[in-house]
Amino acid sequence: MEFFSNIGKIQYQGPKSTDPLSFKYYNPEEVINGKTMREHLKFALSWWHTMGGDGTDMFGCGTTDKTWGQSDPAARAKAKVDAAFEIMDKLSIDYYCFHDRDLSPEYGSLKATNDQLDIVTDYIKEKQGDKFKCLWGTAKCFDHPRFMHGAGTSPSADVFAFSAAQIKKALESTVKLGGNGYVFWGGREGYETLLNTNMGLELDNMARLMKMAVEYGRSIGFKGDFYIEPKPKEPTKHQYDFDTATVLGFLRKYGLDKDFKMNIEANHATLAQHTFQHELRVARDNGVFGSIDANQGDVLLGWDTDQFPTNIYDTTMCMYEVIKAGGFTNGGLNFDAKARRGSFTPEDIFYSYIAGMDAFALGFRAALKLIEDGRIDKFVADRYASWNTGIGADIIAGKADFASLEKYALEKGEVTASLSSGRQEMLESIVNNVLFSL
Amino acid sequence: MEFFSNIGKIQYQGPKSTDPLSFKYYNPEEVINGKTMREHLKFALSWWHTMGGDGTDMFGCGTTDKTWGQSDPAARAKAKVDAAFEIMDKLSIDYYCFHDRDLSPEYGSLKATNDQLDIVTDYIKEKQGDKFKCLWGTAKCFDHPRFMHGAGTSPSADVFAFSAAQIKKALESTVKLGGNGYVFWGGREGYETLLNTNMGLELDNMARLMKMAVEYGRSIGFKGDFYIEPKPKEPTKHQYDFDTATVLGFLRKYGLDKDFKMNIEANHATLAQHTFQHELRVARDNGVFGSIDANQGDVLLGWDTDQFPTNIYDTTMCMYEVIKAGGFTNGGLNFDAKARRGSFTPEDIFYSYIAGMDAFALGFRAALKLIEDGRIDKFVADRYASWNTGIGADIIAGKADFASLEKYALEKGEVTASLSSGRQEMLESIVNNVLFSL
Amino acid sequence: MEFFSNIGKIQYQGPKSTDPLSFKYYNPEEVINGKTMREHLKFALSWWHTMGGDGTDMFGCGTTDKTWGQSDPAARAKAKVDAAFEIMDKLSIDYYCFHDRDLSPEYGSLKATNDQLDIVTDYIKEKQGDKFKCLWGTAKCFDHPRFMHGAGTSPSADVFAFSAAQIKKALESTVKLGGNGYVFWGGREGYETLLNTNMGLELDNMARLMKMAVEYGRSIGFKGDFYIEPKPKEPTKHQYDFDTATVLGFLRKYGLDKDFKMNIEANHATLAQHTFQHELRVARDNGVFGSIDANQGDVLLGWDTDQFPTNIYDTTMCMYEVIKAGGFTNGGLNFDAKARRGSFTPEDIFYSYIAGMDAFALGFRAALKLIEDGRIDKFVADRYASWNTGIGADIIAGKADFASLEKYALEKGEVTASLSSGRQEMLESIVNNVLFSL
Amino acid sequence: MEFFSNIGKIQYQGPKSTDPLSFKYYNPEEVINGKTMREHLKFALSWWHTMGGDGTDMFGCGTTDKTWGQSDPAARAKAKVDAAFEIMDKLSIDYYCFHDRDLSPEYGSLKATNDQLDIVTDYIKEKQGDKFKCLWGTAKCFDHPRFMHGAGTSPSADVFAFSAAQIKKALESTVKLGGNGYVFWGGREGYETLLNTNMGLELDNMARLMKMAVEYGRSIGFKGDFYIEPKPKEPTKHQYDFDTATVLGFLRKYGLDKDFKMNIEANHATLAQHTFQHELRVARDNGVFGSIDANQGDVLLGWDTDQFPTNIYDTTMCMYEVIKAGGFTNGGLNFDAKARRGSFTPEDIFYSYIAGMDAFALGFRAALKLIEDGRIDKFVADRYASWNTGIGADIIAGKADFASLEKYALEKGEVTASLSSGRQEMLESIVNNVLFSL
Repeated sequence: MEFFSNIGKIQYQGPKSTDPLSFKYYNPEEVINGKTMREHLKFALSWWHTMGGDGTDMFGCGTTDKTWGQSDPAARAKAKVDAAFEIMDKLSIDYYCFHDRDLSPEYGSLKATNDQLDIVTDYIKEKQGDKFKCLWGTAKCFDHPRFMHGAGTSPSADVFAFSAAQIKKALESTVKLGGNGYVFWGGREGYETLLNTNMGLELDNMARLMKMAVEYGRSIGFKGDFYIEPKPKEPTKHQYDFDTATVLGFLRKYGLDKDFKMNIEANHATLAQHTFQHELRVARDNGVFGSIDANQGDVLLGWDTDQFPTNIYDTTMCMYEVIKAGGFTNGGLNFDAKARRGSFTPEDIFYSYIAGMDAFALGFRAALKLIEDGRIDKFVADRYASWNTGIGADIIAGKADFASLEKYALEKGEVTASLSSGRQEMLESIVNNVLFSL
Repeated sequence: MEFFSNIGKIQYQGPKSTDPLSFKYYNPEEVINGKTMREHLKFALSWWHTMGGDGTDMFGCGTTDKTWGQSDPAARAKAKVDAAFEIMDKLSIDYYCFHDRDLSPEYGSLKATNDQLDIVTDYIKEKQGDKFKCLWGTAKCFDHPRFMHGAGTSPSADVFAFSAAQIKKALESTVKLGGNGYVFWGGREGYETLLNTNMGLELDNMARLMKMAVEYGRSIGFKGDFYIEPKPKEPTKHQYDFDTATVLGFLRKYGLDKDFKMNIEANHATLAQHTFQHELRVARDNGVFGSIDANQGDVLLGWDTDQFPTNIYDTTMCMYEVIKAGGFTNGGLNFDAKARRGSFTPEDIFYSYIAGMDAFALGFRAALKLIEDGRIDKFVADRYASWNTGIGADIIAGKADFASLEKYALEKGEVTASLSSGRQEMLESIVNNVLFSL
Repeated sequence: MEFFSNIGKIQYQGPKSTDPLSFKYYNPEEVINGKTMREHLKFALSWWHTMGGDGTDMFGCGTTDKTWGQSDPAARAKAKVDAAFEIMDKLSIDYYCFHDRDLSPEYGSLKATNDQLDIVTDYIKEKQGDKFKCLWGTAKCFDHPRFMHGAGTSPSADVFAFSAAQIKKALESTVKLGGNGYVFWGGREGYETLLNTNMGLELDNMARLMKMAVEYGRSIGFKGDFYIEPKPKEPTKHQYDFDTATVLGFLRKYGLDKDFKMNIEANHATLAQHTFQHELRVARDNGVFGSIDANQGDVLLGWDTDQFPTNIYDTTMCMYEVIKAGGFTNGGLNFDAKARRGSFTPEDIFYSYIAGMDAFALGFRAALKLIEDGRIDKFVADRYASWNTGIGADIIAGKADFASLEKYALEKGEVTASLSSGRQEMLESIVNNVLFSL
Repeated sequence: MEFFSNIGKIQYQGPKSTDPLSFKYYNPEEVINGKTMREHLKFALSWWHTMGGDGTDMFGCGTTDKTWGQSDPAARAKAKVDAAFEIMDKLSIDYYCFHDRDLSPEYGSLKATNDQLDIVTDYIKEKQGDKFKCLWGTAKCFDHPRFMHGAGTSPSADVFAFSAAQIKKALESTVKLGGNGYVFWGGREGYETLLNTNMGLELDNMARLMKMAVEYGRSIGFKGDFYIEPKPKEPTKHQYDFDTATVLGFLRKYGLDKDFKMNIEANHATLAQHTFQHELRVARDNGVFGSIDANQGDVLLGWDTDQFPTNIYDTTMCMYEVIKAGGFTNGGLNFDAKARRGSFTPEDIFYSYIAGMDAFALGFRAALKLIEDGRIDKFVADRYASWNTGIGADIIAGKADFASLEKYALEKGEVTASLSSGRQEMLESIVNNVLFSL
């Protein structure tokens, strides 16, 4: 059946179009630098928000019907597949991301749950063919009461064991669906109060769980990337994977830094008081840039709003980092975003995705323009030129020490004149100039 | 000369005293667990705030006279020494902390500046005798315009060289004064905008500078600890040493984790959205707990207020972590705190220190009582008991993998019943009960 | 039936008790200044959190069973009454607060819903007798999808009409149950984005709704207070009742300032970047102090955590303001607080309330002691003494203008010497001294 | 003399220009809707930041020379006038804003200070001719130690008197220079801690001061607007003029609402957790929109960064509100903005202003386009259509009450279907579409 019979395939009609159900900046088949836009951007639908999220929040029940016409859980799970692929087809989205329980809910025992999940993944595999692809999978180890104190960091060893079993199955499902990414987002991996928490043990255990996941994943042929998705808080007061820098320290401590990359979420970045670009830059500079959860937060609010991204400054600087990192390999742009609770109609799904996809398409075009324009990059290169020769080159080459540098400094005299202006305002002007003459 | 002739030595008079110029909880010579309170707490005066800070803020000039009766810089520098030791004597404070430029300002050339600094450190060395000690020293590489874009992370190699020279001298001064700590606080080591920043190069350079510092310090006999003092922002938009976890990642990347410990500041913790205790716990769990900048921030404000600490919850949980870490070795409690701008009289110096010292003395007593009471620690131990035997012990011993854990979970069935309540409210009640029956 | 047969009546056993199921500071029948503690504190149980809240959050389902053994909604509604009164009896709580839908859910049509609500309020009225009392009631105009864009501020006039009808019934129910307070908390009265909002019309309409409520309430014999409960955000991005000062401006604009007082919530205060005491002080100074939603937020988090209050500094300064305001008249201390999601056992209900009640009992004792001690109040009186005589008295009496004041200032010369120190640190020391020698 | 001889008059060269010292969007003489852009935008230079701000911050001294070649204060004051008018001429800026002490500093006694100020205002009056105009003036009642506890809200009546005298003179100077605005920004009008504060008295006194100002101003022929500039905090912990809504409540309480309008600052808005547009909308809806302090804050930082505005979303929505309010009357766009500390060269003054002026010129063009496009405005009008007829019109006409609305609601049945989607994502898409096809 068709779920959105009143909506046709969304076409690229360019910026002049007044049809709200059209792309104005995203032209899927347009070839740029040898690849199509859909290949550059690798958009993914998020199964949880789009297929399952009904607008429920802490102060109100759902506003949107996401039952897909089915009251039986197993039938609904299949209907979700059909609806998801219809949405993806109409929007020219190639990838999807899932938690195990988004695909198929729990059915009493783990065995029964796994069996039902197999039925759904069989169905997806059959339906997706070559057209739709899994970007990454993950296990929902935070919703059920058993995870109330954490999964890999639970005080209960039994819960750890259960989590391992669940992640094992989620990994198998990801591999089965051809996914090249597996994400750890530790929704409950953290603490509520240090008064009841053994933080050292919990972090050791989290590392143990991840090592097992890597070993098992490789043993079943998973060649993709493991990702950690940093977030500082919510639902937990303090989550262990606070931000990219924190995760890097953790990975290095436990020798996991070769196996893991980052799945950076814009809203999580700002909750941690970083810009989205900052998190991407830290990942890029440390060789752990992986994938992106594309959304935006509201910096005047203190929780994860998961809004569809529409700020072109942010999408531009995001794509600037992605391009500088060499583009996506296994990762992509997953819309971990939900239509506002008041955007409750079926059409809003499409308006929302169009808003987000056009925002990233425009950001991508702007980032390319920014690089082509060259003024920003040249400014940075010039600013650090002193490191290419003389004392700068010596320092980098390891030829200097405190004694030699003191000698240099005493002879040199005041060095303030070696500084040039940071020119922040001029550079921001250039960005505006490039963006507003696309 | 005596600077505070109207103020006598501050005596311990117990909680019943109504004399505002008395200690109510800090009894310097009281022996607890084999050491005096002054040995347990190792209070330090901060040279910058107490001897130099005059109440200037971004919207107004100084309210307090900190010229110490001298208009000549060299004479003032010596007067500050006399006044500092008078304050420390009257307050029973044994330690002090300094930036090089707090002791003696710049005099045109680096050579002249260093020469004058020597005169002042000679004078301190002579005056301190066995009575007063240097807790740690540091170099003020953030005030002068030459550091406007950073010191070790400046785009200018000349500024890097100058910084190295300045730190070399500050290290020498610290060693000369018997200091067992040397602090890096990177006030300008960070960025204002990524539009003009090569973050990767800057961080590599910061590591280079620190390596040189360690090599040089050890070569001149410095046996104490190097500290990094994390702070997320201010003055820089984004500082590289965001928090303890971030610094751990940095230290591990560059192989510096054996040489550095943390100097944790309460106000910096909350600016990074962590509790003070969180930062101390992260440091303790990773073996890098070093020293403390004792103050408090205002969590409803977004900048570094550096208030004298008076919140007993915070001082209690701080001292709880310090005791659990085995107490201070080379570190101590440095009051990186300033009297409010409106607390402008000479007496306010004493009121402020009394407030802070009594708050930590009370917190120390409360922490000991909390440990002695044992309810909190026992609760935590019981909560994690499942890791001592059975499957928990197997996991820790490395005897489990995904296959064996899946088998275990499938056989075990639902594990929610293995969880006990986190009891946060009861534990907070216990803390109140212990605190309010001291 | 008894729901908590394993838990006896909670007794006051004093601070030395190690029984976790005892009061250590709250002695309900202890007479202080001519009234019992239960009369001073007027604790109330919140029907929504305690009887209905099951631990569900944005990332996980409920952890606590709040079905009270009944699957039928009507039977459950009555069981909640029985359980609530059992809890209140065991905890010596005299009051309760409710939303209409906490008592009885929706049943299809408004008529059916109202009829069922009548059955439940009949049952409450019968069961409460003289022992239990309603502190205040309110209408849940934010949960159902019909309120997605607001109730009184909905773009739909039909929703406004429905809201009026619902509030009418809630007011009638409150009067029937003897409640002396009626609360407006505008959970959805605000906006998500100005792009789709006519703010001026919405605020005019909110005022219209409140005027109708006052007129109707008085017509049916409601002699109690109408309250507005300020909150800056969540669930709505921007709520109109941001804080007490904002609401005061609104009330004055629409001539509602004679009919409304404030219901101040601690957690809402900090979300608005104010201290709890600030909000209470603004209300007291403007004659609109009414009632209190007793809880605490986590200032390092950006959402409404509704924790049980345990911070004695906050409860002390709260009770200080309440005492200065003359104590409660129609209002009281309603625990708008929920046990943490991980505090999921039946015992945690009691631990949580004990934690909160003891915290306020201790705060009440501390506030009385602070006033009796007198140092703080005397300091403030002295600080403003210049307004009692001379030029200060003239200014207050309206006898001065710019010309006369200029003349005075020119003659007077520099006035800085007229200032005394603000002594913040000393005052904080005094507070600690009073609190820690209770 | 010419201060910026290397910089010529900045010309409009359009978006294609690569000359960094050109306007790309601001064409001063371009006529739009019957007025030139310079008339629409009414840009003003801020005397404090541009002529006096040298880059000093809490952690470092100045980086920029703002002595204008003069060491004598009186000579420097005149040089600042010359330099200011040169900058304004080169940038096509017509207006300036000042604090009294920006123009001329204190000289011992108030009499001497006033006399010197007269000399400077004479000089300005002579030099400005018909070309340059004063947008507004204000008194710097927050810098000097005498204001440490406030000016109009000081505990010292003598300080109140001094403030009145200073404001009297500032008002006279404003009138003399032809200014049509006078601003109150209460930098120290607030409190540091409630422990030492009589908030009620302080606010009464603030109202007394403002009443005197109005009376005196009108008596000397000031026909312009009095403005209050809201700010929630910094330097004071809690400032009384928190935001527009708070100030409205204050003005209404004291009967000042007819005499005062708002001077809205973007950075102050976000510090108060509001968008810039929100503050403008509140002012517009309440008839108190006055003038604008044009800058931008960094929402990831918690202090007033006063950056030059470059975010086109913000400038667009600002100008949208300004246009809807009927454009500026007495007010204008004052750049209360400072070049970053690292933007320390003379050129940066021009780059910064160009960045800000182009951002507002582009925002103005975009706002006009948004209104002309009409999709947003039509959406809002349609959304509230139910208030134009039927029950909605009745409610607005005052013909409805709770009884009639209950009757209506009971007959109507479920009203959820009366709601339409809020369409936030689609509306954000439209904004992007308009902005990126200018």
